[in-house]
Amino acid sequence: MKTRTIGFRDAQIELAHGAGGKATRRLIEGLFVPYLDNERLAQLADAAYVEANGQRLAVTADSFVVKPLTFPGGTIGELAVNGTVNDLAVSGARPIALLTTFILEAGLPTNVLEPQVETMARAAQNAGVPIVGGDTKVVEHGQCDGMYITSSGLGVVDPRASLSAKSVRPGDQVLVSGPIGDHGITILLARGDLDLEADLSSDTRSVWPFVDALLSACGPHLRWMRDPTRGGVATALNELARDADVAVTIFEEAIPVRDPVRGACEILGLDPLHIACEGQFLAVVGPEAVDIALAALRSVPGGEGAVRIGEIGTEPSRTVIGHSSYGGHRVIDVLVGDPLPRIC
Amino acid sequence: MKTRTIGFRDAQIELAHGAGGKATRRLIEGLFVPYLDNERLAQLADAAYVEANGQRLAVTADSFVVKPLTFPGGTIGELAVNGTVNDLAVSGARPIALLTTFILEAGLPTNVLEPQVETMARAAQNAGVPIVGGDTKVVEHGQCDGMYITSSGLGVVDPRASLSAKSVRPGDQVLVSGPIGDHGITILLARGDLDLEADLSSDTRSVWPFVDALLSACGPHLRWMRDPTRGGVATALNELARDADVAVTIFEEAIPVRDPVRGACEILGLDPLHIACEGQFLAVVGPEAVDIALAALRSVPGGEGAVRIGEIGTEPSRTVIGHSSYGGHRVIDVLVGDPLPRIC
Repeated sequence: MKTRTIGFRDAQIELAHGAGGKATRRLIEGLFVPYLDNERLAQLADAAYVEANGQRLAVTADSFVVKPLTFPGGTIGELAVNGTVNDLAVSGARPIALLTTFILEAGLPTNVLEPQVETMARAAQNAGVPIVGGDTKVVEHGQCDGMYITSSGLGVVDPRASLSAKSVRPGDQVLVSGPIGDHGITILLARGDLDLEADLSSDTRSVWPFVDALLSACGPHLRWMRDPTRGGVATALNELARDADVAVTIFEEAIPVRDPVRGACEILGLDPLHIACEGQFLAVVGPEAVDIALAALRSVPGGEGAVRIGEIGTEPSRTVIGHSSYGGHRVIDVLVGDPLPRIC
Repeated sequence: MKTRTIGFRDAQIELAHGAGGKATRRLIEGLFVPYLDNERLAQLADAAYVEANGQRLAVTADSFVVKPLTFPGGTIGELAVNGTVNDLAVSGARPIALLTTFILEAGLPTNVLEPQVETMARAAQNAGVPIVGGDTKVVEHGQCDGMYITSSGLGVVDPRASLSAKSVRPGDQVLVSGPIGDHGITILLARGDLDLEADLSSDTRSVWPFVDALLSACGPHLRWMRDPTRGGVATALNELARDADVAVTIFEEAIPVRDPVRGACEILGLDPLHIACEGQFLAVVGPEAVDIALAALRSVPGGEGAVRIGEIGTEPSRTVIGHSSYGGHRVIDVLVGDPLPRIC
């Protein structure tokens, strides 16, 4: 019997523990991992790899509690499908089956539920993945804000994929598939608490077609991928820096951010690098593969905005540094606290 | 493009839609299945079968919203593990990986969360299945009653298993692994709303060791299994009668029910056949295999109470009939309404 070290010292759970940043990591590493001790969980990746009689599979699950349930560009039902598909995709796995479970509030009008089922079905069809099962629970009126949805997914690891933070090395290049922060700011504005309006919609979509194109184009030069949802690009790249024991340098002006996202962030004192995307992903490729990778991404409809945003170095290790063209630089940390609760 | 027929006509969701009985079936068949149209979902089984490069797999997911979070004999964390393990087991699949997602209430004391993680870890260890990943979301104080947990599982279909309601035929025999209704009545009493006390605890456990023993002993004579959770034995057998297009006769006196369960049901006007179990299962075997099946079940610790409770006939088709020893009989229907909300 091993001795467990429970490092989680917070007396109670706060919204920040669900934000995907520093507090979430503390909860998971300090409480969940010590109890549920196993190598695959400890990797804390988007999906876990499992072997079944020699067949390499990937599995993933996420709960969705976004508020409101419907917003420009998407619904909780679409997020539940695309979020799970994308966790498999960035793990190099072709999604083959989804399960969805609903927790519904008693009194929920059927005409609120039905569009969620409908958009979920459409998202699954667009992603080419069947929803093969699920579950429905109902809780009392006043609980669960209409509905929470949990989805889990099964994928077959693509034989072309050999992704791992450990394979990332100095000189490798960091790419992003398109503009960041659209989803988080869309949700924030959709709540109507702020007197802000913008022509902006969620970027929720399946990223599998982009991943598929990258795998074909780059083979082993594709080292690592991650979809920067909660915690944003900053958190995803910090996890890379830490897991790969490297420095990640990003060129701040190169990062695509739409004007409404930049504007809302300036007004609210948020950093776009901490804002969630739902249809973008980060990839690290070998330096020899940058041009073919970008060409591959841009050849897929919706991938025209793919660009190189940074590179991998050695020092300062386990750190993300933002460089600006006028010579300044700053340390970019993971998300602390939860400026935007319940965005997915 | 097929035309969808949306048969669900209820204007809003009620607790009964989550009870696992008639209303749940109406919601799933009337709304979810038409939109999420595919053959595997339409089977509405405990788990769905998926093929990955020739490897037969089973996947399942359930959300748990039981209240209270801890009760005699178990916790929501244990239910989440065992419930998912059991859905795979009764589908003839050896569980190989679990995922768990938490929706936590802001303000939840860590000393409430920690025992859930601990008991979940122990249940997973007892079941011999690793928890390889998951997710954590946090919602505002006042939502979600502390926590909801969703678990999903992956299993490898056992080569000895060829289970299907369609293979059930007249003359086959119905077995149950032990006393029914313990879980549901335990939860009811644990809420303390009733002035009733009883020496009773939840039966939550993994049933895989029993299934494993049955598969070894019976091979193809094992036709069908189901764990009678929400909706109880009555609902599970009605689904069998319907899916197999047969009559199911049960011998009411043969059904094992502990005294406290029978007593509470009499006082409350409930039928034990509608009360959920979490560690029992129903099996249908060919008549030639009854003795070896019962011997196999009773040889596993905790299976001493396994008995034959009924048999398969032809008329009245798609119906469950209860016979009593003094010659009476009654039609046993699925659960209608929700006498015991949030028991799992």
